[in-house]
Order: sequence, then structure tokens, then C-alpha cells
Amino acid sequence: MGLVSEDHILACIARHFPGTHPAVLLGRGDDCAVLRAGADLCVSSDLFLEDVHFRRSYFRPEEVGYKALAVNISDVAACGGRPLGFTLSLGLPRDVDMPWLEGFFRGMAALADRHRMALVGGDLSGSPCIHVSITVWGEVRADSLLTRGNGLPGDSLFVVGSLGLARVGLEELEARGDAARALWPDACRAHLLPLPQVDAGMTLARAGFNARPPALMDVSDGLARDLPRLLGITPGGAQVSGRHLGAELLLPQGMLPPEVVRHAREKGRNAVTEALLGGEDYALLGSCAPDMLPALKAALPQLMPIGTVTSSGRILCNGQPLEGARGFDHFGGA
Amino acid sequence: MGLVSEDHILACIARHFPGTHPAVLLGRGDDCAVLRAGADLCVSSDLFLEDVHFRRSYFRPEEVGYKALAVNISDVAACGGRPLGFTLSLGLPRDVDMPWLEGFFRGMAALADRHRMALVGGDLSGSPCIHVSITVWGEVRADSLLTRGNGLPGDSLFVVGSLGLARVGLEELEARGDAARALWPDACRAHLLPLPQVDAGMTLARAGFNARPPALMDVSDGLARDLPRLLGITPGGAQVSGRHLGAELLLPQGMLPPEVVRHAREKGRNAVTEALLGGEDYALLGSCAPDMLPALKAALPQLMPIGTVTSSGRILCNGQPLEGARGFDHFGGA
Repeated sequence: MGLVSEDHILACIARHFPGTHPAVLLGRGDDCAVLRAGADLCVSSDLFLEDVHFRRSYFRPEEVGYKALAVNISDVAACGGRPLGFTLSLGLPRDVDMPWLEGFFRGMAALADRHRMALVGGDLSGSPCIHVSITVWGEVRADSLLTRGNGLPGDSLFVVGSLGLARVGLEELEARGDAARALWPDACRAHLLPLPQVDAGMTLARAGFNARPPALMDVSDGLARDLPRLLGITPGGAQVSGRHLGAELLLPQGMLPPEVVRHAREKGRNAVTEALLGGEDYALLGSCAPDMLPALKAALPQLMPIGTVTSSGRILCNGQPLEGARGFDHFGGA
Repeated sequence: MGLVSEDHILACIARHFPGTHPAVLLGRGDDCAVLRAGADLCVSSDLFLEDVHFRRSYFRPEEVGYKALAVNISDVAACGGRPLGFTLSLGLPRDVDMPWLEGFFRGMAALADRHRMALVGGDLSGSPCIHVSITVWGEVRADSLLTRGNGLPGDSLFVVGSLGLARVGLEELEARGDAARALWPDACRAHLLPLPQVDAGMTLARAGFNARPPALMDVSDGLARDLPRLLGITPGGAQVSGRHLGAELLLPQGMLPPEVVRHAREKGRNAVTEALLGGEDYALLGSCAPDMLPALKAALPQLMPIGTVTSSGRILCNGQPLEGARGFDHFGGA
């Protein structure tokens, strides 16, 4: 017998998440929820698994609940969508207790509330480890979808958000546990509580209403691995667009977060390489026509131009071939 | 290093599931999929976990793929919806190989194809056990939602599908493994390859276009546990409707599947009780105004009337109080 009952969990969910939402005709508690017909919807699903994506030893329960939803919202942000709702399926081992779950739901509800998102349903089950599976959706305009693979040579490349910081946080939390928080506060925060760039995504979508929309994605596996995806280059090197796209990045060390630079120095590594290989940034990576860049920069002061799309078929960073620019395999497989 | 790579899995998915669908503006491979605005959508998420919901020892990979999707489609059927698409998040342990995954996707794709459903995205991760998390959606008409809790005293109760058969299959497969298939073919089939009642659900939804819609749900935890939910009675006995609803069931043994009757006889048990306690039926359980029943029975010859909604606050079966009529706790918790 576990430490929690289904009734207690459902009561906890009812306390933390409102039962009604303007976009929801029928909420939790029936076979399905029913969403009101309206805008085109963008949909994404992401897993957040114990000892794969987080550890209970240094993640507080609030942070697990927050981050599980944040990484899903980041996909909606990368489409320029406005998040509306989500379903939550939870697998729980026997040693999870109600105080842990209270914190988990509190952290998740705070983020859902900030974006006015409805939790419309899901599933509960026993499981060997904590297993969080979320499907999120948001409204988008079909005439301004921010997709991958539609950049052109000469387009400007940009990033919204920080590169490499979350990876420093992961490395230090793995090495030092909770003590890392005081030594590397920005990095730990970037790993534990990443900020989905929803407002920036919606601003970029608006820029595409009367022009060629920017290309956009969120950086989850590190810029070195994700930039080829933005350009429509498969891990095997094939070009989806047939355009032989490449990129020239200009990333002076001064553009990087101070803790990334300090960490690289302490470890005797190259800070730029570290920033490009770092995963779980949940920054937005995009490209746009060069004449669109000034208006975007004015609307999003935090947007950082990082280079140019080329027709060379190669990716260079500060004049050197980019290391590690290949697909990240979640199974480390053959 | 595992036996599979992410590229191989994605190639396998591409082979088995078409990349386009009339209701999908943007399919797999970007941050989100994009669904075309249209009908109201019903949405549901269900987990299907190794050693909780299935065992690899007697489930063939095709059956795991089929059933993981079938139990999700069943929720759409219980709303009277037409299934349109799904996302799939897969957690895979290191010992899963490509032949197993080929079978898994083949079984899932056959069912998706039968209902013309699009697989629009999802996630892949390592995991300690096989973990299948699906979110499914379908189109519904908001003016004819088939929900729980809207029955009235005097309404007729009915079932579409068989009761108790899947539980016999589970018990025999657990006891005998693969050898159970020859001895209990109907029961094993009901457990391994349950049929989501999509056409019946849509027929029931049409009956509600110009009349009070039937109440409807799918029976996943056994009729004894699910009937109170249909009536809007909480596990604590509270009446959501405030109507003090109850039910009188008439279930002669002759209405039960022959293998359920034979199994109860061999085990020295009461066949009707067994049928009512049996889980994972994925039958539809509903109620409707009594004058609607003849038309429903004509449209759905397999529909079985099983009794009447009362205002007694009690559930009787064949004149006796119904055993086990309480909520099923997936954690067996306090």
C-alpha cells in the first residue's frame, strides 16, 4: 500500500487547479474534456522522468512540477502560440507522499496560473519511478506558423534566452547537490526553473502576420545540435529544403552569461563551446529576413543576433567549424 | 548503450504512420503539431505501463501497441466523438529491440488506420520499464455531449460490449501465460485486443441531436465501480446531481459471455458478480429516456438493456445490493 490515495490526489488537484476555463466546455472528471472550437491549435507532448530528466535529491517538488510543465510550454512558445491548456499523466512510486505531491502541484499550478492554462484531465498510475507525461496545446494563427526549416541564405540568426547556463546548473547540481544553489545561483535557476519564452514567441509570430514569418524552435539539446534542425538539416547531413543551407555564427564570449564564463574558466574549458553544447536552455532560436531584425530587436530588447544563414552547407562559429553539430540520441544508440 | 537508436525509432514511426491528415496543418517533426480549427474537440490521456497494465511475457508487441491506443480511443467513444489524432510519448528500457518496436508500431498503426487517426507527435526517452503515454482527441458536437451524471429516475440503463470477459482473460493469462489463449480465446482476446466502441458512441451521440442526450461512459474499472460514476455518485456516496439517484439492474446469467459463465462455474463463483466486478471491459455503459430505448436498440442491435435508474439512492442487482460498488483506487491507498 502506497502513501497516497487516488482520492487525496484528485482533491489536491482540485484545490490547485480551477475547474473552469473560457476555452473549455467540459473540464476534468468525465471520459474526455471538451475544448471549444476556435483557433487553430498547436499541440505537443513531453516526458519528464525521474533520474532521466530530474533527481529528487536536488529538485524540490515545486521545481519538478514547474519544470515538467515549463518544458512543454516552451514548445508552444516555439510555435508562437498562446498556451491554453494541458493534460497530465502521472506515474508514482510507492514512496511518494502527499507533502511531496502538494509541492509538485503547487509549483505546476503557479506556472499554469501565470499563463491562464487549464488542466483538463489525465491519468494516474503506480510506476517504478516518478513519471510525468504532459500534453500541452495553445492557439496559433495558421498564416503565421513559426516552423523550422524555412530560413533562406542571408537571413539573420538570433537567440532569445541564455545559452549554456542550464548545463552549468546541471553539472554543478549533479556534483554538489543542493550546495550548488549558493555557488551558481543563475545556473541552478536556469536548470531547475527554466523560463518558457511565451511572450517572445507571440511577438515573433506577430512579426510574421504581413511578412515571411521567422523560423523558430526552442533549444533543448544545445544550440550545436539544434541549429542544424532549425536549418532543416537531418542528423545524416541531408538538407530538407534542398537549399544547401549553412550558418556563420558570431558569438563573442562577452555575450555569454557570466556564470557560464566563470565555470568554463574554473574548469579550463572554452566558454563558447560549452554554451553551444549546453542542453535544456529552452531559449528560442530563430532566423528572419535581415530587414525584419531591427523591428524584432526593438520589440524584444533581449533578442541577441548571433549570425547569418548561409548557402555554404557548413556551420561555422567564430570562423571555426562547429563542434558537436549533430543529433542528440536520447538512447545513446547504435 | 541500448538496442535501438532514436533515428531508427523515428524511421519506424515514419514507415507505419502517414505524415499527413486532413485535420492536421503541420504534422510530426517540429516543436508542435498544428491542428486545423473546426469542430469542438474532446481530449483524453491514458497511461499504459509495463507490469501495471500489461506484461511482455504474454502480450505480443502488436497487442501492446494496439491496446495502448485502444484504451485511449475508448474515452473518445464514450463521449460520442469521432477520433482524429493522438500524440505518443514512449519510455523504453535498454532491453527493447527494433523487432519488438516494429511489432508495437504495426499493432498501433493498424488501429489508427482503421479510425483514420493521425499520429502528430510525442516524445522518446529511456525509462526503467516500457511506458506508453497517449493523448487522443476527436471531434464532438457540443450540443450533444454524452457525459456522466445527467441521468434521471426512470431512465433505461444499457451496455454495449461484453462484461467480465477481459477480467477472465487477465486472470487466465496471469495464471497460464500464453497457453491461456487456446483455452479461453474470447476472454484473452477481450483482454489483449479490446474493441473501442466508436461507431456505437457516435450512434448514441446522434440520438441526442434533437432530444435529451444519453448519459454515457466507458467501463474500465468494472460495472460495479463505474455505474455509481455514471449516476454522479462519488466514492464517498455524495450525489453530484443532488437527485439521490440509484439503479435496479436485471442481469440474468444468460446475458453474459459463455466464457464468463464457464469460468465462474469452474472456479465455484457467481458469474453475475464476476461480470460486474470485471475491469478493463471497455464496454459503453449508458442511460437514456425510456422512450429513446427502442430506437437505440434498432440502431444498435448489440445494445443490452440492463435495468433502470431509480430515485432510491441504492444500487440493486437482481434484487440484491450490489457488491463492490465503490471507487477503484489505482494506488490501493489509505
